[in-house]
Amino acid sequence: MTWSLHPKLSELTTEVGDLPLSRVLLENDSNYPWLILVPRMAGISELIDLDPNEQVQLLGEIDAASRALKAVATFEKLNIGALGNMVKQLHVHVIGRSSTDATWPKPVWGLAKPVPYEPEARNVLVKKLRHELKM
Amino acid sequence: MTWSLHPKLSELTTEVGDLPLSRVLLENDSNYPWLILVPRMAGISELIDLDPNEQVQLLGEIDAASRALKAVATFEKLNIGALGNMVKQLHVHVIGRSSTDATWPKPVWGLAKPVPYEPEARNVLVKKLRHELKM
Repeated sequence: MTWSLHPKLSELTTEVGDLPLSRVLLENDSNYPWLILVPRMAGISELIDLDPNEQVQLLGEIDAASRALKAVATFEKLNIGALGNMVKQLHVHVIGRSSTDATWPKPVWGLAKPVPYEPEARNVLVKKLRHELKM
Repeated sequence: MTWSLHPKLSELTTEVGDLPLSRVLLENDSNYPWLILVPRMAGISELIDLDPNEQVQLLGEIDAASRALKAVATFEKLNIGALGNMVKQLHVHVIGRSSTDATWPKPVWGLAKPVPYEPEARNVLVKKLRHELKM
């Protein structure tokens, strides 16, 4: 079984690049600085489906993605979540939240209409994220 | 600075017990099997505020809480989240979701009116959780 990115995850995101375990995606919604990490392992839907070493690797990548987001964007609080009720493929949201954002203090999912980035602004952001993540 | 549980977290939960790093709480809402892990460290609001060893310890406790929940309740998907927009004290939700539950497939936060457990049912559940978590 070969891993491939779930089409629903690719549809609304731009690829930032690959960390050792995860593909890093930028959600195409300028309401929030928002990354998604998707471990490149077929058939995995839960954190507890990963073995302990893989879990620790994913945790390190969540930490790195959080710090990269902090380095390139301004926000007050991180929201980290692995839900997967709509898309079963294991993916972890890392989102920067601000008290002025579209849905604060509620969670982001399914509430505000996405506001796509201008292509140029998105390219600049992706480039900065790649730099921070040493990609 | 001494750690103490945020009053908003104690208000709606029952204490299950302490793991090496975290206090484990049962959300008093029978809509979902729902645990909350709160690292007993003062002044911490983000996962990335923990050092790498503490992060790995918390991850192991999230794994243990997920498995304990699976052992005592029936559900289809885990939702794991560290948000903290309302209560800054670092806390991690571990929630069992089912396609028949009150808010599926949406996230749980702030949507359904909590349905408190009957005291006897809650005591039985807490006892089972303590057994699974070797408390």
